Amino acid sequence: MSMDREPIETRIAALVAEFAGAPGRREAPGCCQALVDAAARQAVASSEGGKRLRALLALDAYGVFAGDVPSPARDAMLDLACGIEVFQTAALVHDDIIDDSDMRRGRPSAHRALATAAHDDAVGTGLGIMLGDVLATASVAIVDRAARGLPNRDALVGAFLGMHHEVEYGQMLDLAVETAGLDDPGHLAAASLDVFRWKTASYTTIAPLELAMLAAGTHPGPARERALAVGHPLGVAFQLADDLLDVIGSSRATGKPVGGDVREGKRTVLLADALREAGPDGRAELIAAYAAPERDAATVRRVIDLFASTGAIDRSRERIAGLWRQARQAIDALGLTPDAAAALADACSRFVPADLR
Amino acid sequence: MSMDREPIETRIAALVAEFAGAPGRREAPGCCQALVDAAARQAVASSEGGKRLRALLALDAYGVFAGDVPSPARDAMLDLACGIEVFQTAALVHDDIIDDSDMRRGRPSAHRALATAAHDDAVGTGLGIMLGDVLATASVAIVDRAARGLPNRDALVGAFLGMHHEVEYGQMLDLAVETAGLDDPGHLAAASLDVFRWKTASYTTIAPLELAMLAAGTHPGPARERALAVGHPLGVAFQLADDLLDVIGSSRATGKPVGGDVREGKRTVLLADALREAGPDGRAELIAAYAAPERDAATVRRVIDLFASTGAIDRSRERIAGLWRQARQAIDALGLTPDAAAALADACSRFVPADLR
Repeated sequence: MSMDREPIETRIAALVAEFAGAPGRREAPGCCQALVDAAARQAVASSEGGKRLRALLALDAYGVFAGDVPSPARDAMLDLACGIEVFQTAALVHDDIIDDSDMRRGRPSAHRALATAAHDDAVGTGLGIMLGDVLATASVAIVDRAARGLPNRDALVGAFLGMHHEVEYGQMLDLAVETAGLDDPGHLAAASLDVFRWKTASYTTIAPLELAMLAAGTHPGPARERALAVGHPLGVAFQLADDLLDVIGSSRATGKPVGGDVREGKRTVLLADALREAGPDGRAELIAAYAAPERDAATVRRVIDLFASTGAIDRSRERIAGLWRQARQAIDALGLTPDAAAALADACSRFVPADLR
Repeated sequence: MSMDREPIETRIAALVAEFAGAPGRREAPGCCQALVDAAARQAVASSEGGKRLRALLALDAYGVFAGDVPSPARDAMLDLACGIEVFQTAALVHDDIIDDSDMRRGRPSAHRALATAAHDDAVGTGLGIMLGDVLATASVAIVDRAARGLPNRDALVGAFLGMHHEVEYGQMLDLAVETAGLDDPGHLAAASLDVFRWKTASYTTIAPLELAMLAAGTHPGPARERALAVGHPLGVAFQLADDLLDVIGSSRATGKPVGGDVREGKRTVLLADALREAGPDGRAELIAAYAAPERDAATVRRVIDLFASTGAIDRSRERIAGLWRQARQAIDALGLTPDAAAALADACSRFVPADLR
């Protein structure tokens, strides 16, 4: 039995209202009330519209490892799962400032919405930085309280803070990769996969599995080891699939136009593989395309053609399928009953589209 | 006996190295090592050079409330005090991005130093946002671990996270005040004093006192109430004194040029009081000076003259002296022995220069 999203959505809204509003529910001085209200509304708005993949994995994995657990612990686990989602919102608010992104989930990004409210771009960015901080603090407060009602309290809080740190480090790595040259594609591929480990797999798959196992009473050492064995390949496959769907399109609505990553000049494993396999002309063409400040629609199409003709797209398919197999084998090695292993594999399968597994 | 700064400085360096470096002490991929190293070095550099007023207050207050406590608890309290300082560093890194400040404590601000390392302003700002996040996460991890060895563990972590939230809210209020008009000086003064409560007093005086009392075993309710009674007036007096010294100068080296706040157009209580007491001409002159995008040296001098002639400077002196008396009376109402009360008053007196008390 797999969790549905509605109780997660309802609980996130309640937790954000509880932990991310004005301290002590106080009113701001008159001149500031409008902007403070705008920030509180934005905390709620930015928290809406996620797919809740991370909370669903945490809750489904908890079902597998803990079985049918009665209410106080089950409620605490729900809050733990929501804490991961609130952290994600915090990270996305800061990401959108760093990437200068105007839109998120089909709406204005938080700092843009706040710039509109303040009639001032710099104030909007400042309020956005603070909103990310407020949500990050709220996520820790949510998890700190939830952990008090669960086994392995210290390890739960430690793992959650470790996850914050890993994502922050991964975002730094990502910024460093964006400044790296394109003259060593092998290196670029390795560095991009490293970014996926820290910036994405950390909180997308590793932490949800680790927190679920800890909350179910697994000792911290084995919980960490097993969460990494399953979650590392799974989370990297998830990001590779996301990047691949960006260039090959998808029957599902991803909410993103095809080729968006290419247009933005994002360094991806696809690009690294294409650079490595391209002949001198193709490589020169790719480097020129990515060195330019912008890429028009024709260039985007040409780059995607090179991704296909160099075999980079096939290489990504192979990588994704191989990582999925690795995650699947790690699940089989957990010593679960066949039914439990199938349930966990099912929960994990949300991260990789069926035709890429 | 009052703490000295050296053990604090040494311990902060060790804690930042432990909690704010690359996760798991790993190496970054080659292309990224230089920037990741620069960020790690900046975490240490940004942590240096503080006056450690907050850690000193926490440790001295702990001495007053807990007496002579043996080592494991005393070490945990030192880490708690250092956690406040690491949080301050995190907040200053984000503040400097929000205020677009190039310098901090006589050196390049974190995001500027990282922009130099990356040869890219946007990447420097992005790394700066993440460095602030890393340090904020580190501060919680430090306090979470320290609290395990102290009484009132849950309340300690709760108070520390509450302090994060208050400062973040205060920074939002501050941004809102900066966008407010100058047509209602009474309102502006009230709003500025409100910013001081949340953005400054919260972590400068209230939290150090509250954490010290909790760590000494005071029940959470009374600890909060007493920390507010002393810390709220004391922290507001501290910020008023800081703003006043900016315009009247100081025999001590504050590291800031006289009139810096005026040049930057900062909304202060001094400005609000001057606007309220000025005649129509003076008020128009002040509004014009603050409406301009920049203020030159002659305008700064003229504004400071108006602060003096309208009585705003005297009004700030009265406010500071009154708040100091209020803090002093709150100390006397704590029911300490005369020696203990004198020691606490001594620790608190660091926040208000003797000639303003």
